[in-house]
Order: sequence, then structure tokens, then C-alpha cells
Amino acid sequence: MEAAGSLCLTALVGMPTVAAGADLAALIADAASRSGVALEHGDALVVAQKIVSKAEGRRVRLAEVEPSPRARELARTVDKDPRLVELILRESQQVLRARPGVIIVLHRLGFVLANAGIDASNVESEGGGEAVLLLPADPDASAERLRRGLRALTGAELGIVVNDSFGRAWRLGTVGTAIGVAGLPALVDLRGTPDRTGRALRVTEIGTADELAAAASLLMGQAAEGRPVIHVRGFPYPPRPGKASELLRPAHLDLFR
Amino acid sequence: MEAAGSLCLTALVGMPTVAAGADLAALIADAASRSGVALEHGDALVVAQKIVSKAEGRRVRLAEVEPSPRARELARTVDKDPRLVELILRESQQVLRARPGVIIVLHRLGFVLANAGIDASNVESEGGGEAVLLLPADPDASAERLRRGLRALTGAELGIVVNDSFGRAWRLGTVGTAIGVAGLPALVDLRGTPDRTGRALRVTEIGTADELAAAASLLMGQAAEGRPVIHVRGFPYPPRPGKASELLRPAHLDLFR
Repeated sequence: MEAAGSLCLTALVGMPTVAAGADLAALIADAASRSGVALEHGDALVVAQKIVSKAEGRRVRLAEVEPSPRARELARTVDKDPRLVELILRESQQVLRARPGVIIVLHRLGFVLANAGIDASNVESEGGGEAVLLLPADPDASAERLRRGLRALTGAELGIVVNDSFGRAWRLGTVGTAIGVAGLPALVDLRGTPDRTGRALRVTEIGTADELAAAASLLMGQAAEGRPVIHVRGFPYPPRPGKASELLRPAHLDLFR
Repeated sequence: MEAAGSLCLTALVGMPTVAAGADLAALIADAASRSGVALEHGDALVVAQKIVSKAEGRRVRLAEVEPSPRARELARTVDKDPRLVELILRESQQVLRARPGVIIVLHRLGFVLANAGIDASNVESEGGGEAVLLLPADPDASAERLRRGLRALTGAELGIVVNDSFGRAWRLGTVGTAIGVAGLPALVDLRGTPDRTGRALRVTEIGTADELAAAASLLMGQAAEGRPVIHVRGFPYPPRPGKASELLRPAHLDLFR
């Protein structure tokens, strides 16, 4: 374990604004090439949820949303647009907490997060109407498609993480979090691995894809979407099929819902 | 925001086993030198809690701990060593959840975490007695001392993060988390910063030190303590005085205690 290790992350330059139907794999391969980054076997790419959602046409114009009575009522409690609340409810299995300004839900994908991950920033409106962006329909599948698309274009077997900025219980500030994974382990199980003194380990599982998502988030920034793709060399865990859904804590093991 | 950005993390080699009273700044400066890493202005170092605690003599022999009646009772509930439970209670403001195998506390430092962060792995016993390691008494102060010590040795103004592996609500797997910070922003406030379309941002604060702590954790590994110091070049937020305590969510803003 004394071998040198290094992990280098590079923001790709030259990603264009992504339109619905765009071929993300092709856009990313072009941006890598323009950035002077060779995509090699074992590298990873962390891709912002926002551009995945845009490519998949997950933009919704609020003018086209008809809020239900339940959404209208909840909207009064939280002081939000009833049409946005309607979309939050449609994207969720359960509302866990609702306070003025805040709705925390169990998303249909199993994530616990604010506003069902619906993003109202950096979404261009067309014809003056407000639009918002939903999470991808199936971000693990999005990551896998991207992995295959990039393998076809470059020949390289890459790991892919789709990330988003999530708030946390107990701590302030968002951190980059994995919502879709392909080609690398989302969770690494060390149970039973002995430590240096020969005892069993106290820490048993590592959220490796979340750690990578957080690292990449540092370079993505938040105030603009100019850096939505981060190239990673040196992710230290061997490639394998992986899914962000590995990271979901089953309800019966969760003491904080 | 289209400028290239890169972030490179390197595990220092050659850190010795750290004894109580060790001069961590000197050990780290030596290891950097042996690793061929020049410590430069604006670089950061992420240092594992374990070696900070060891240097500060936070090792406790369980044979010297007398459990209180409350600790004995809680130990039966959670099926843990009553002496360990005694230490957990001494280190905590409040027990938030207790189930067989799990005690989640509000630590005296304000963190919500399992077992008050007390580590029974990789702690060498002396004379056959079991020992555990408490968190540093004041990890922000530990980070600041390290920052000053390294400035004195190298002339460089560095950012320092002391990290530990924390579990999370809702998600499986631990992630590296900042428990001590000096010389860089733990939390970056973007409230009011416009996005590319001119709207106000939805995401307002970023847990930058936690993102950095998570990134470094990828290289530290867990099964041994051979890589407890990670050098970071390219942390993208300007240096300023910072504290990990910036990341603590005040109880009145916390919906999940």
C-alpha cells in the first residue's frame, strides 16, 4: 500500500450547449480531442446531470403543467410555484419533509433529495416561457449508453459517472453525488479485509462513485455550465459493471427518513 | 468559465507510523520531499484524521476506561463493548439513534456520525491491551497548527483539510469528509450569483472542503494507513481562512435529526 498513487481530473473545454436529441458521446469525444485529452482504457468521465437531461429531452415548460389539487396545497405550504410542485410530486415516491422553501422527497429513482432534483437554473426558456429540467429517466442507463457510445467512438473502456449536486442531512453545502454509473464500482465492499494490525475493518463499504462525483464537482463549478464534463485519470479501483443504485440505502437500514 | 481547469492529487510516500507527540508538519514535509512533491503556494494537503489523532496522543487503552451505568445499559442495546460505549458517550453531546451494532451521535464537535468517530482499526495495542483512537480535540485547530508548521518549514501558504470517512443518511458507503480545515474555504456561498441565463442560482452553497476530502479519500484507501497524506494541486477556490465548522448545519435548519 506504499506505492505512489495519483488522481488527475481535467475539465474538458469546448462543450457546446446541448440540445434535446444531441449525441452526447460524440460531443464529449470531440471536446476531449479539442482539449488535448486522449481517452484511454481505465479512464473515467464525470458528466453533469444537466447535459444528460438536456440531451434526453427532459426539459419541461411550466406553462404546459396543470397542477393537481394536492400540488396546489403543498405549493402554499412551501411557497413555491404549484406547477413546479406538481412536477416534483410526479417525480417522487414520497414527500419526506415540507417546509417553506424546501421539499425533501424520496425520488422515484430512490434518491433522497430536495425538489426531486428539478433544476430551474441555466435552463434556457423558449418564447419567454419558463422551463425546468428533470433528472434523466434512468441515469444508470444513460451512463451505460454513454459508455458504449464512447467505446464505439474511441475504442476505450471508460468508467462513467453522471453527477448532480445534492444537499445533505446535518451538513451545509451541496456536494457532487453520483446519480448514474457505468463501468466502475459505485460501492466498494471491504468487509472482512484485515487492516495493518490484523483486525477486521471498522469501515466496511466505501461510496467510491460518490467520492469521484464530489471530486469532479470541484472543477465543474456551479454558476455556469461551461464545464459539464470532467476527465479522470487514476481512479484507483478496478473497472467492473457498476450502478449508482448500489449506493441507495434500503429503507430498513435507514434510520433517518 | 470556459478556461481549462485541472485538479491533481498525489499520495505522499514514506510517511512513518506516527507516534504521540510526533511533529506532523516535519514528517509531512519530509514525505513530500521524498515523494518528489514541491509544496507550493496555493497547494492543499489532505491529512487523515488517524495520524492527527495519533500525533496528538488521542489513543485510549480500553483497560483504563470505567463504564458508567448508562454506558453499560446502552452497550447491551447496541451489543458493543461497554468501555467503547463509555468513550462514545464522553465524546458526544447527544445520542441520536441506537440500534444493535450502531450508535449515531451528535459529536461534541457538532458532527453527526457513527460511534463518535472512534476508531478501533489500525490502532496498535501495547502490551496486548486493546486501544482505540478518538477524534482530535479540535481538528480546526489541528489543521491551523499544521498550516503554520508547514509554512515555517517550506515558506508555502497551504490549505489543510483533516478528513475522516463518514457514513451518510440515505446512501450506503462512507465518503471522505472534512473535520478540520485551515487556509481554504470549507463552504463557498454562491447566493445571488447569476447563472448563464441571468436567473438566480438554485444551488446556493457548495461544501468545497467536503468535496476535496472525498477526492483525497479515493487515494488514501481504507485497509491500511500507508497513504494518510494527499497533496492537491489545482483546488479551484481562492485561499482564505476557513474552518470545518462552517459545514455544520445548525439544528434549526436540520430536518433530519
